[in-house]
Amino acid sequence: MGRSLLSSTVIPVRFPQIPKSIPPLDRSIHPIPPTFALNSQRIRGFSIPTKTFCTKAVLSESPNPKRYPKMGSDSVGPIPPSQLIQVVEHAANTGAQVVMEAVNKPRNVTYKGLTDLVTDTDKMSETAILEVVRKNFGDHLILGEEGGLIGDTSSDYLWCIDPLDGTTNFAHCYPSFAVSVGVLFRGKPAAAAVVEFVGGPMCWNTRIFSATTGNKVLSNELYLMHILYSNYEIKVGNVILTVYLFLGGGAFCNGQKIHASQTDLVEQSLLVTGFGYEHDDAWATNIDLFKEFTDVSRGVRRLGAAAVDMCHVALGIVEAYWEYRLKPWDMAAGVLIVEEAGGTVTCMDGGKFCVFDRSVLVSNGVLHSKLLERIGPATEKLKKKGIDFSLWYKPENYNTDF
Amino acid sequence: MGRSLLSSTVIPVRFPQIPKSIPPLDRSIHPIPPTFALNSQRIRGFSIPTKTFCTKAVLSESPNPKRYPKMGSDSVGPIPPSQLIQVVEHAANTGAQVVMEAVNKPRNVTYKGLTDLVTDTDKMSETAILEVVRKNFGDHLILGEEGGLIGDTSSDYLWCIDPLDGTTNFAHCYPSFAVSVGVLFRGKPAAAAVVEFVGGPMCWNTRIFSATTGNKVLSNELYLMHILYSNYEIKVGNVILTVYLFLGGGAFCNGQKIHASQTDLVEQSLLVTGFGYEHDDAWATNIDLFKEFTDVSRGVRRLGAAAVDMCHVALGIVEAYWEYRLKPWDMAAGVLIVEEAGGTVTCMDGGKFCVFDRSVLVSNGVLHSKLLERIGPATEKLKKKGIDFSLWYKPENYNTDF
Repeated sequence: MGRSLLSSTVIPVRFPQIPKSIPPLDRSIHPIPPTFALNSQRIRGFSIPTKTFCTKAVLSESPNPKRYPKMGSDSVGPIPPSQLIQVVEHAANTGAQVVMEAVNKPRNVTYKGLTDLVTDTDKMSETAILEVVRKNFGDHLILGEEGGLIGDTSSDYLWCIDPLDGTTNFAHCYPSFAVSVGVLFRGKPAAAAVVEFVGGPMCWNTRIFSATTGNKVLSNELYLMHILYSNYEIKVGNVILTVYLFLGGGAFCNGQKIHASQTDLVEQSLLVTGFGYEHDDAWATNIDLFKEFTDVSRGVRRLGAAAVDMCHVALGIVEAYWEYRLKPWDMAAGVLIVEEAGGTVTCMDGGKFCVFDRSVLVSNGVLHSKLLERIGPATEKLKKKGIDFSLWYKPENYNTDF
Repeated sequence: MGRSLLSSTVIPVRFPQIPKSIPPLDRSIHPIPPTFALNSQRIRGFSIPTKTFCTKAVLSESPNPKRYPKMGSDSVGPIPPSQLIQVVEHAANTGAQVVMEAVNKPRNVTYKGLTDLVTDTDKMSETAILEVVRKNFGDHLILGEEGGLIGDTSSDYLWCIDPLDGTTNFAHCYPSFAVSVGVLFRGKPAAAAVVEFVGGPMCWNTRIFSATTGNKVLSNELYLMHILYSNYEIKVGNVILTVYLFLGGGAFCNGQKIHASQTDLVEQSLLVTGFGYEHDDAWATNIDLFKEFTDVSRGVRRLGAAAVDMCHVALGIVEAYWEYRLKPWDMAAGVLIVEEAGGTVTCMDGGKFCVFDRSVLVSNGVLHSKLLERIGPATEKLKKKGIDFSLWYKPENYNTDF
């Protein structure tokens, strides 16, 4: 296989995300050979190993059952994925720097509602993120939690920005909270980054999750290739290079590939949910679901930051997360990271999901149907009651593929 | 004041707990003068500053309203507090080392109940902790979560050990979990240490909380002295020493004094609770309380490790925590840390608490009555129903002061 396959396929190559605390690669020792193009060009010049190195990936990245179609974009559009993800990560890290500076200082809290907080840090973080996005892509549309919609609605790209997801936790110095930046291409998530703040007083730390959408239509051979070559070292001449193949995108934490868990029994699963500020029928239904799943699983956690909870599903430390009434900026990044980690994303009635939906269920995939057995009927009941589940916060005139 | 007060009062001095990651004090530069005795001796040789340096301590360490009597021991007994806390911290750190070694390895999970897990790490951590305790105090009584009761029931000291609090979280690599070691003197907490594991994959870290019981009967002058001198630097000749006065004990995190929050409104508070493995009437009542407080506060978190949740109250990042059906090893350390951080500890009916009780409410103190307005009646209803709230896991023949 291999050579003929390579010559007929476009395979962008991405070099690993280098965490801040690790010294960057010395490019004089590890040069990028000219035959390795960064975007949309063909890879040449390496021999194909005959062993599978990454059996975990085989399991967790096997395509989801067709019952739950992918909700990520089919491509990142005309912008090369490596360029897009670089800006997304840079934007999220820029916001995170603002948050980190504020993390041990007194907070100036104001209220959007009785218990819906906002701090100066939310606003400063959003300003910093917007600057990065507009500097790089001045013509893109942006939807920020604090500032609302700005930019050109004729753009195919929509940036969904939560400058501080989990503001209540932040206000209390309670981990976790996050900066979340997701960019949609024609309405579907194409690239995402979430910087999570962990630990708390005396031991603050961060980790960054990221993902780009991959090629969703893979031949069996191409899929096998992806498994063989994703995230490992290859020798080119006498230089060793760590290569991340962009087929299938993939989700990363601090530059390492991550995978949703393989737990397929509800009674062996750890779950997490959230409760919004509006205490309506959907809120009450979710209290019932919290009770029901606390009863039958290993436990339901309630941590308080949607983007963080989704990244935890992608990291494989919880099996699933659901919530009603989230906004696009809460979900745009997290859902893509889960999907690219091998998980499944739908609405809470099991229907096809988009980031303008008013409910979301993300899971490790293998557990999805079993969770829907309880979550689905509860959500259907709400719909029958006339509770509004129509799309919201979708910019008028914004072009989408759904 | 000062001098005359000093000469009539016994003030043990404790030098700060040095976190592992910070280089230890250079004793050749900061010698301990012979006039500074470590235990039960008088402090001489320093001049008394005239300013109050630590206004926060004045607020958060003001004695609680008499309505909620202290539940910590009046003294640590014949063992000097500095010796006792050293062994407690050493024991907790020893267990934590075992846990840290296991944190990134696959878990061998077995079940005590349908969802009540135990791992090899729980057992290995307990073995390591027991070794430390028995080596230092061979005649003390020990109650471990895994091994049960061992030792001499005629001892005034009872060690309550949770070698891995939050095993479910540990099994899923989900923060937080902890090693908890509390020692009772005649039935009441005298010294405590909790090592919390935070962060999770890619960024594991720990912090250690500790406390010893203080002198509960302080004159106003002595109390003022405590506020003036706790946890700051004094000059002795030309040497600067950081001094922790042991009056009032105090709670510490990584060697720094910590204080419960001052939030006095339920609607501005962040709360946390837990749900046990037995899904009985008390469990259902707490689901109702979860709903009720989620409705009226900034949120109720559900993190999954009792000792950790209590330490978070002591750290001031949540205002209160409650749970039915905890065991002595879950609570012995945490409740003392909360009380010494200026918080209040009672049963969930508002009654006087001991670690053999079947319910606990810990709070920042100022919020306690307001929380009991809802938690108290719910608990009374359970009592009227005949639900058992008698003491449990209290070793027969063990001498207590209550």
